[in-house]
Amino acid sequence: MEPKNRLNEVEEKVNDQIARVRRRGGRLKDEVVTLSHGAGGKASAALLDHVFFDIYGNQLLEQSSDSTVVTVEGERLAFSTDGYVVSPIEFPGGSIGELAVNGTVNDLAVAGAEPRYLSVAFILEEGLEIETLRRVVVKLREAADTAGVHIATGDTKVVPKGAADKLYITTSGIGVIPRGRELGFERVAVGDRIIVSGPIADHGMSVMMARGDLAIDAPIESDSREVASLVKKLFDDRIDVHWMRDATRGGLATVMNELAETTELGIALEDEKIPVRPMTRAACDILGIDPLYVANEGTFAAVVAEADATAAVEALRAAGADGAAVIGRVVDKPVASVVLLTGFGGARMVDKLVGDPLPRIC
Amino acid sequence: MEPKNRLNEVEEKVNDQIARVRRRGGRLKDEVVTLSHGAGGKASAALLDHVFFDIYGNQLLEQSSDSTVVTVEGERLAFSTDGYVVSPIEFPGGSIGELAVNGTVNDLAVAGAEPRYLSVAFILEEGLEIETLRRVVVKLREAADTAGVHIATGDTKVVPKGAADKLYITTSGIGVIPRGRELGFERVAVGDRIIVSGPIADHGMSVMMARGDLAIDAPIESDSREVASLVKKLFDDRIDVHWMRDATRGGLATVMNELAETTELGIALEDEKIPVRPMTRAACDILGIDPLYVANEGTFAAVVAEADATAAVEALRAAGADGAAVIGRVVDKPVASVVLLTGFGGARMVDKLVGDPLPRIC
Repeated sequence: MEPKNRLNEVEEKVNDQIARVRRRGGRLKDEVVTLSHGAGGKASAALLDHVFFDIYGNQLLEQSSDSTVVTVEGERLAFSTDGYVVSPIEFPGGSIGELAVNGTVNDLAVAGAEPRYLSVAFILEEGLEIETLRRVVVKLREAADTAGVHIATGDTKVVPKGAADKLYITTSGIGVIPRGRELGFERVAVGDRIIVSGPIADHGMSVMMARGDLAIDAPIESDSREVASLVKKLFDDRIDVHWMRDATRGGLATVMNELAETTELGIALEDEKIPVRPMTRAACDILGIDPLYVANEGTFAAVVAEADATAAVEALRAAGADGAAVIGRVVDKPVASVVLLTGFGGARMVDKLVGDPLPRIC
Repeated sequence: MEPKNRLNEVEEKVNDQIARVRRRGGRLKDEVVTLSHGAGGKASAALLDHVFFDIYGNQLLEQSSDSTVVTVEGERLAFSTDGYVVSPIEFPGGSIGELAVNGTVNDLAVAGAEPRYLSVAFILEEGLEIETLRRVVVKLREAADTAGVHIATGDTKVVPKGAADKLYITTSGIGVIPRGRELGFERVAVGDRIIVSGPIADHGMSVMMARGDLAIDAPIESDSREVASLVKKLFDDRIDVHWMRDATRGGLATVMNELAETTELGIALEDEKIPVRPMTRAACDILGIDPLYVANEGTFAAVVAEADATAAVEALRAAGADGAAVIGRVVDKPVASVVLLTGFGGARMVDKLVGDPLPRIC
């Protein structure tokens, strides 16, 4: 069966879902903040709508991206911020230190920017071992060197024991968008291909394992890395990139839903083409977690022109992203929705994350 | 007695202090983080030296300022970040919302920059009332409008109940430094005058009062305000400003010590010329707190050419800073030290803050 026909089959099933999906989370019914509000899914979107977008209004320059393009004296700069509250602060493949660099560097990179400067603000809990702090800061410095960004400025606050959980880091970044790099939802068109830069779900599962409160243990390492060098390779190879986003909080499913909702196009993903490492998939299966919703810290999704899809994957692999793959395409129906085409000719809707199965993953 | 003679009198007393004062805090002996490390005084400096400066090394572009000048495609930008952990989050004259805007806007302003863009990252404690959050965000928005900055980008994280104290905010800001504005420690010279833009110690004392755990209560309001408009007035009036700094964590005494240590010049302040509101002074007296060490959130210190001192104060007053005053001058001795000249011909050293009398004030 052709993918197109399968899409038609599920179309009627999703019509009643569309209105709901297109709302970025629906009404906020809660009176207090819950962990779900921080998970990157529907509850997060509801909180953002009800509190931040409602009040910031036109102050907030751009709402549907992790970084914002600002123009300063004629130059296009990307400006981004992220808070890091991961628990535990050290896990296989990384720590909150490199996470805080890579996360913000990657937000800049997927906006098409070359990351230049970072600010780093620590909130420390009284009683934190200085040696632990030093280990984190060493990893942070190393990650900055690898990504080629300068730590321009910083801040340190201390709160009483019990008013934080060891340490939190908030980084902000400034990048310069070279002329000719034009990315945006408006450039996404039917027929474009969806690419991921590597296997998904490693970061979230590695943090879950590091917490040690699961019935299983598996040697899964976070994918935390900078992707600015991968993005540069795409542009150096003159790939016609239309849109990019790193698949962090809420995972690939969440960024694909944002893409579908904002463009009002359909995203058809092919299940068997989405790279997931065997160990990670096994851990997800045992725990009943869908890897599509698990956070990544060094993996991004891109929309490229159909003609450039193969070259894009080759470029990413040449730059060291061995697991890069074409995983789907942009379709006209179902509108504003993400559909997963399974290997047996089936299809299912991939909705936004509801609730919070994986708190404090990033 | 002339101030000059008084300075000579105390010089011998301070020679043994100088080596100590010039070190930015001395060796870090602690094995864990303490509240003193966040107070902005000597312990903070020791932590910064031992952990951050040591590891960041040449990554950190500028160490002795709250913002950093970065050059992007030929333009001079100021880049600054600050975390806000004030408790309680609402207090007379302000809340953590306007603090998070004004603090970062002011760091940019005193670097000579016109503030343009802010990033705002929240860390929320599970269970925080949504209405409380909304009140804070409304104040934040209003402060941004007043300061003329755009909230360009943001982030929200949620941590479990008990892993934060209601909410923390980290803001970063980008400002543009107009050509011709040249500020820096290297421009400070003997004979220059020291100015403050208004009465000191109101912010810290208002937060202390709001905590309600003191034996006294006084209607003191925070001085939280943006100072970018005041700075603009100084430059519009062509005042020859050599250096500026907002006197936040650690108060006026701390920024004056940083000035003295970095320039290796002396700072002679005249006690009776330093503006302190009567109510604030009374509260400080009762509690045994020196107002020189209390945090401000809308008051800055400036070094201006001697010939422009009076015009500078007039400019600030014309722009609404009624309490602006000349409070001292730059002298050659004692080197790298701050001396307070009292009304009765006495003088005392104003050392850096030791310990942490006022935690979580900003």
